[in-house]
Amino acid sequence: MSNPRPNTPLLDKVHSPADLRRMSDGDLARLSDELRAETIWTVSETGGHLGSSLGVVELTTAIHAVFQTPHDKLVWDVGHQCYPHKILTGRRDRMLTLRQKDGLSGFTKRSESEYDPFGAAHSSTSISAALGFATARDLGEATGDAIAVIGDGSISAGMAYEALNNAGSEGRRLFVVLNDNEMSIAPPVGAMSRYLSELSKSPFGQMADEIAKHLPGPFREGAERAKALMTGATGDATLFEQLGFTYVGPIDGHDMGQLLSVLRAAKAQATGPVLIHAVTVKGKGYNPAELSDCCYHGVAKFDVATGQQQKSAPNAPSYTGVFGKRLLAEAEADPKIVAVTAAMPGGTGLDVMQKVYPDRVFDVGIAEQHAVTFAAGMAASGLKPFCAVYSSFLQRGYDQIAHDVALQNLPVRFCIDRAGLVGADGATHAGAFDICFLATLPNMTVMAAADEAELVHMMATMAAHDSGPIALRYPRGEGVGCDMPEQGEVLPIGKGRIVKQGDRVALLSFGAHLNETLAAAEELDARGLSTTVADARFAKPLDTDLIAQLVETHDALITVEQGCEGGFGAMVLHWLAKTGRLDGGVAIRTMTLPDRFIDQASPADMYADAGLTARDIAKAALDAVGVRISPQTAKATS
Amino acid sequence: MSNPRPNTPLLDKVHSPADLRRMSDGDLARLSDELRAETIWTVSETGGHLGSSLGVVELTTAIHAVFQTPHDKLVWDVGHQCYPHKILTGRRDRMLTLRQKDGLSGFTKRSESEYDPFGAAHSSTSISAALGFATARDLGEATGDAIAVIGDGSISAGMAYEALNNAGSEGRRLFVVLNDNEMSIAPPVGAMSRYLSELSKSPFGQMADEIAKHLPGPFREGAERAKALMTGATGDATLFEQLGFTYVGPIDGHDMGQLLSVLRAAKAQATGPVLIHAVTVKGKGYNPAELSDCCYHGVAKFDVATGQQQKSAPNAPSYTGVFGKRLLAEAEADPKIVAVTAAMPGGTGLDVMQKVYPDRVFDVGIAEQHAVTFAAGMAASGLKPFCAVYSSFLQRGYDQIAHDVALQNLPVRFCIDRAGLVGADGATHAGAFDICFLATLPNMTVMAAADEAELVHMMATMAAHDSGPIALRYPRGEGVGCDMPEQGEVLPIGKGRIVKQGDRVALLSFGAHLNETLAAAEELDARGLSTTVADARFAKPLDTDLIAQLVETHDALITVEQGCEGGFGAMVLHWLAKTGRLDGGVAIRTMTLPDRFIDQASPADMYADAGLTARDIAKAALDAVGVRISPQTAKATS
Repeated sequence: MSNPRPNTPLLDKVHSPADLRRMSDGDLARLSDELRAETIWTVSETGGHLGSSLGVVELTTAIHAVFQTPHDKLVWDVGHQCYPHKILTGRRDRMLTLRQKDGLSGFTKRSESEYDPFGAAHSSTSISAALGFATARDLGEATGDAIAVIGDGSISAGMAYEALNNAGSEGRRLFVVLNDNEMSIAPPVGAMSRYLSELSKSPFGQMADEIAKHLPGPFREGAERAKALMTGATGDATLFEQLGFTYVGPIDGHDMGQLLSVLRAAKAQATGPVLIHAVTVKGKGYNPAELSDCCYHGVAKFDVATGQQQKSAPNAPSYTGVFGKRLLAEAEADPKIVAVTAAMPGGTGLDVMQKVYPDRVFDVGIAEQHAVTFAAGMAASGLKPFCAVYSSFLQRGYDQIAHDVALQNLPVRFCIDRAGLVGADGATHAGAFDICFLATLPNMTVMAAADEAELVHMMATMAAHDSGPIALRYPRGEGVGCDMPEQGEVLPIGKGRIVKQGDRVALLSFGAHLNETLAAAEELDARGLSTTVADARFAKPLDTDLIAQLVETHDALITVEQGCEGGFGAMVLHWLAKTGRLDGGVAIRTMTLPDRFIDQASPADMYADAGLTARDIAKAALDAVGVRISPQTAKATS
Repeated sequence: MSNPRPNTPLLDKVHSPADLRRMSDGDLARLSDELRAETIWTVSETGGHLGSSLGVVELTTAIHAVFQTPHDKLVWDVGHQCYPHKILTGRRDRMLTLRQKDGLSGFTKRSESEYDPFGAAHSSTSISAALGFATARDLGEATGDAIAVIGDGSISAGMAYEALNNAGSEGRRLFVVLNDNEMSIAPPVGAMSRYLSELSKSPFGQMADEIAKHLPGPFREGAERAKALMTGATGDATLFEQLGFTYVGPIDGHDMGQLLSVLRAAKAQATGPVLIHAVTVKGKGYNPAELSDCCYHGVAKFDVATGQQQKSAPNAPSYTGVFGKRLLAEAEADPKIVAVTAAMPGGTGLDVMQKVYPDRVFDVGIAEQHAVTFAAGMAASGLKPFCAVYSSFLQRGYDQIAHDVALQNLPVRFCIDRAGLVGADGATHAGAFDICFLATLPNMTVMAAADEAELVHMMATMAAHDSGPIALRYPRGEGVGCDMPEQGEVLPIGKGRIVKQGDRVALLSFGAHLNETLAAAEELDARGLSTTVADARFAKPLDTDLIAQLVETHDALITVEQGCEGGFGAMVLHWLAKTGRLDGGVAIRTMTLPDRFIDQASPADMYADAGLTARDIAKAALDAVGVRISPQTAKATS
C-alpha cells in the first residue's frame, strides 16, 4: 500500500533542531501536529515502533526547542520512541530506510548522528548515561545539560533506581523526564507502576515551588487529575523527592504550552537533579493506535486510513507460538510448573498460560535480576519455574544465573527466545552470547531447538529435568514447517542425533541452523563429498560419544551454531584437546558469529553478513577437507 | 594466640532453634549475650566477618525464637552476618573450621544446613528469594513464612528495589527485616542511605497501626530519634509504604524485648508484605570493633582482650595496593582520568585516589549495572573512566558492558580485581568467568597481569588506550615480589612476550599463573623437555604471530589461565581451527578451571583442587608430548 504523504509546510523548513528555536510557541504546537502526521506516514511505509513515538511528539519538539542539542545531551531510554527525534535531527530523508539493511536503526545510535549521544535499545540505561554526561560537564568537558527521557515501565527497573539513587545523592544539575503513558510494551506491573498511576491523579501536581512560580497561571490550573497518594498517606513527598530529586508534575505531555513552560522554568532554575513527570498517551493522535491494546507498539506496514496492517500469512507456526502452547500443555499436566517473565508476557508467549493459570504466571516487570532469583527461590521451594526471557535481556540476569541458580544447582528452566540474530531490531537485540555465558557455568544443561518439533521435545525434557538448571534457546520468527508431534518426548540428556549419514564430512549443528546445515550438506554431496549431518541438541553436556564417532569416521568436522565464539564449538574443541584427539590432527572448523556486531537486516541477510550461509558452511568444509589432504598447503595459505 | 573460651551455660543447652522457643524472654536476652561472646571468641580463633555478625546477634536469636525455622525460611542477604545463625542452627561444633578447606562456609549455604534455605554471598538477592518461597507457600508447597534480612547497603541495589517493587505489588505475606547499621562494608552512599538515616531519627517510628496496638507500651515509647524526613516533607508515608509494604520501625535491633514484640506482632497480624526497620550497630558489644572504622568487617585472628589482629607481614605488595597507587599516579598525569567503584573504595584500592581527588572518584553504592553505564556516559563525554569492580561482582554489569560499552565501542577501562580463585570467600567470590564473558564481546581488549610489575605496565596501557573498551584482570592477594618499574610502559596491544625460550614444549600463560607455569617448565626441563614459557598478556586480541610461532616450533602447546573454559584457551583453539592449523595436528591442552565450583580453601589449595598446579601443567605437557609421539595410545586411554 502507499499512503498519501501528509502536507507539512512547517516541518519542511526544519533542517535541524536549531530551526525550532526560532519558531513561536504557536508554530511549535502546529509543527508537532505535522511531525505526528509525518511519523504516522513514515511508519505506515516501513513498519516499526509507532505507539511510543506518537506519545512523545510534543515532548521531542519541546526538548529540542528549549535545550541546545546536540551540545546538550538528550538521552532517550530504550530509544524505540525516537522516530520524531530522528525526523527533526537531519534524518528525515532516510526515514524510509528504517530498520532495514544499511538503513537507519530503529533505536538511537551514536554512529548515526551527533544528536544521539548515547545509543539504546535495552531499557533503563538513560539516567546512568545522562549522569555520566552531567558529571563530565562538571569536570570541565565541553558538554551541556543532560536530559534523560524514560518511560514508566523502564523507570521501574533496578538499574534506573540505582541511577536515581546515585543522581539524587550526587546532587548535580540533571533532567529526567518521566514519560508516563502507563504502558511499557504490555501494561506495566509492580508497585512503582501503581504509585505513578496514583501520583498522576494529583490535581495541581507536586510542583516544586521555585519552578512553579515561573510558570504561567493557566498551567498551574491545567492539570486534571485528583490527588490520591497510593498508601493514603497525608504527606506530599514523592518517592523521587525522597531520593533527592526536585519533582515537577504531573504535566500534560501533549500540551505544548505546558511542556515549554515547565522545561524553560526547569532549565532556568535547576541547580540539582529534577524529575519532570509528563503524562502521555501511547499512540496519541492516531485513533487505531489509541484504541489498540498494545497501542501499536510495534507494527507492520499499514493503511493510514483504516489502520489495517499488512501482515503476510505465516508459513509455519512461530517458535514463540509453539512455546506458549506447549508451556500451557506442560502446566496442565504438572501443577508445580510456574512461569516468570520480565514484562514480556506476549513477546515470550507466556500470555497463553497466563490466561488459563493467572496465579502461576508472574510478570515481575522489567526486572531480569529479580526474575531469575525469584525463580530460584521458587525452585528451592519445590516448584518448577520456567523463566522466559529473550537472550539479549537475559544478560541482565547473568550474575543471578551464576550465583543463585547454577552454584546452588537449582532446577530453574530458562526459556530463551530471540536466540541468534533477530532481524530488524539489529545488534542490540541479537542473542549472540547466551551459549557461551550459560554453557561455561557448572551444573548448567544447555539445549537448542533445531526446529519447532524439537522445541516441543525439549520443553518436555525441561519439565522432566528436575536435578539442576537447564536452558533452551530458540530463534525469533517462524519455524521450518516440519511435522509437529502430538506429545513432547523426554530426550536423553547430553545426547545428539544423526540427521543424515555420510562418510567424508561431518557437520555438527547446534540449534536452529540445522536447515542451513542440511543445505550445505546437499551442496557437499553434490560435489561428491558424502556428508553426515548431526544435531547436537546439547551444548552441555556434550555428546562426546557422538563427537568421537564423527571425528573418527570422517575427514572433517564442522560445528555450526547461531552464537559467538566461546560457545558450542569451543566446548567441542576443549574436549577434543583434553582427550588428545587434536594431537594427531582433526580437520575442524567452528562456524560461529563473527567477532563484531551485525547491523539490522533480514535474519537471512544478517547471517549472510555473519558468514553463516549454507554456502559458507560448505566452503569451510571444503577448506577443511582440502587441508586434510594437503596439510602443507593449509599452513601456507592461512 | 588462644583466647579463653567464654562461659555460655544457656547457649550450651541450645542444640537447635527449637530450644529457643522454650526459653523465657529474659533468658533469650541473656542467651544473646552468650551468643555474642561465643561469636567473638570463634572469630578470634578463625578470622572472618565479625562486625556484621555482632550487629545481628539479638536479631538472629529473636527471629529463630519467633519463627518456626526451618519450616519458615530465613534468608540472610549476603550471608556474611550468619555466624550467630550458624552457632544456633547445629553448626557450633564446626565453627572453628570456618572459611577453611573442608570447613564451614563463611556464608549461608544450602548444602550445609536445612536452616540455610537459600545461600548467599553476593548482595541484594534475599528479597527475591524470599518472595519465591512465599509464592511457593501460597501455591501449596510445604513451606512456611519467608523472612529476608537485608542490610541498608544491600537494599540500595537495583535488584533489591526490583524485588521490593514486585513484592509490594504481589501483596503476599512476606517479612523483610531491614538491618540498618548505616554501614555496608564502607559507609554507604546514595540517596537511599541518606533517606534511611533520616527515617531512623523518627521518635516513635512509623508503626503500622494494626501492629502497634499489639505491642507493649514501653516499646512504643522506646525509640529515641527525632523525625525528619529527608525532603522536609510533611507526610508520613515512607518509601517502603509507597511501594506497598507495611512499614514498622525504626526499632532498636539490640533490644530483645522490642524485637520479640515486633516480630510476634508482625507474625500474628501480617496479611501482606511487611518491612521491619531495625537499627543496629555494626560490631555491637565488642569495643575494638565498635571503635574501628570498618567495624571489624573482615578480620584476621585476633586477641580478644586487646583487639590486636594477627596479621603476618606481607612478602610483596598486594595487587590491590599496587593498583591503587598506580591509578593515583596515572590520574595525576591525566586530569581526564576518573574512577568508579560500586561500594568498594577500600577493597579495590580506589580510596588512594579518592583521598587526593575526591571529585574524580565515584562510589555509586552496590549498583554495578549503573556503575558500568555511568562510566560509559563519562567515556562518551571524553573522560577516561576506570571502572574497578571485583570479577564476580562485574557479572552484575554484564549486559551493560555488552550493550552500553562494547556495542558503542566506548573507552571504559575495566579494572578487575579478585580474578581467579580467591581463597576463604570460596566459590561465590571466585572470578572464574570474566575472561570468557569479556573476550567474547566484540571491540573488547582483554589483558591479565602476570605479576605486579605487569600490572603497572598494563595500567599505563589502559590509560593510553582510548579507542575502545579495555579490561585488565589481576588476582586477590600479594604479588610475586618482582622488581617494580619506576614508570608504567605502554604495551603494544595484542602482543605477548617470551619469558623463557626452549624448543620442545611451549607453555602459554595468560595472567597470574605465570609463576606456576614457570615452575612447570622447570620440572619439564629437568625431565629433558626443553620448555618455552610465554606470557600472552592479551586474551584479545590474540598474539597470533606468537601462537603460530609456538605451534610451529614446538611439539606441544599448553595454554594456562585462571579462568573457565570458553576463555583464553578457547580463543586460541578457535584461531588454530579457523586457520587450518589443527588439521595436521597440534598437541594442545587448555588448562582452565574445571567445570565445577571450587569450595573455599587457600588459593593454592583451591588451584590444586582445580588441577592447576605446576605438576598438573607439567603432566598435561608430558601427556601431550607423549601423545604426539604415539597418537594411538592417546585415543585408547582417553
